[in-house]
Amino acid sequence: MRRMAAGAGERQRRGDARLRRAALLAAVGELLAERGPGFSLAEAAELAGISTATAYRNFSDTASAVDAFFGELTGELMEAFDRLPAGADPIADIQAVCREWVARASRWGAAAVHIRSPRGVLARRGDPFVGGLYQRLDRLVEAAIRDGAAPAQDVRFAVLMWLTIFDERVVVDLTGTLGWTVEDAAEHLTGAFLRVLGV
Amino acid sequence: MRRMAAGAGERQRRGDARLRRAALLAAVGELLAERGPGFSLAEAAELAGISTATAYRNFSDTASAVDAFFGELTGELMEAFDRLPAGADPIADIQAVCREWVARASRWGAAAVHIRSPRGVLARRGDPFVGGLYQRLDRLVEAAIRDGAAPAQDVRFAVLMWLTIFDERVVVDLTGTLGWTVEDAAEHLTGAFLRVLGV
Repeated sequence: MRRMAAGAGERQRRGDARLRRAALLAAVGELLAERGPGFSLAEAAELAGISTATAYRNFSDTASAVDAFFGELTGELMEAFDRLPAGADPIADIQAVCREWVARASRWGAAAVHIRSPRGVLARRGDPFVGGLYQRLDRLVEAAIRDGAAPAQDVRFAVLMWLTIFDERVVVDLTGTLGWTVEDAAEHLTGAFLRVLGV
Repeated sequence: MRRMAAGAGERQRRGDARLRRAALLAAVGELLAERGPGFSLAEAAELAGISTATAYRNFSDTASAVDAFFGELTGELMEAFDRLPAGADPIADIQAVCREWVARASRWGAAAVHIRSPRGVLARRGDPFVGGLYQRLDRLVEAAIRDGAAPAQDVRFAVLMWLTIFDERVVVDLTGTLGWTVEDAAEHLTGAFLRVLGV
């Protein structure tokens, strides 16, 4: 009820603060893509067109701004996956997730590769990004096997193959280095994964 | 002729220097695997059981020792590949390279992942490691297609799929996190790649 009681001025202030934070995170993403995590919060603030003081009111340092950037990106990705229509065809569901991923990874891949851990993905199933992806893919592969659309197999291995075939760097290689369209990249990578799955 | 003319004392000195350098590089590999590139040359020297002064006679800093470690590892890998018997069966040749890679990557994977670039592999075809791997795989896939053992396809994409499926982190995930044997990991990964290839 407190929110609804806020006056127009208060609502405006909150909206402005949100916009500044969003601009700052967008700048963090741009700097990450360009040169990796070696930038200052002041540089991100300048690129976002906000004051350094405002940047520091949002984040204590570059690392926490990068964490927030990656956190938002993870949240948006999981929401997008959960919005995809789950149909009667488990293979079509897998294809939809693959397409959504490639479209997003081609946009933020260059930034995300800098914050990818050198640890293997199975060793990081506890983190929200890998864990969220892992869980959804595990469910999709299980459904495909249950449905008889894919042969019985080690689901952990199949999910690991998805996570490696769809590595952001691969997406960036195809859409950036080779100049493929997002559609072409998604089609090739999805085809490769479905062949691995034995579909 | 100069080498043959060297006396026993001189040969001994050279042999000792080579051993100390090898011990230092082994220590560099261990430290990389344990904590990534954030160690000093003095720490590597201590682990190798040699003096800091000797370490600095070999390398000016940690970065150049890491470069040398990775350089030797690349050289050994390429030599091992080139020693593999190339037979009449292009698929068996691919399988042999896959096995050799998994056996090596399971040993030094934990160190190598720390020096993997965040750039895509196609963007780095100029560096000796990626370039050497790329060239050999390109040749193997071309041979399989020429032979009719694999269907005609985009060879760049097929090689990119090899490079991503056999990512050291994947090998470390399977042999480390999941505790698979090198043979099991090699068999599964080779199978996945051959299915991608359409064999």
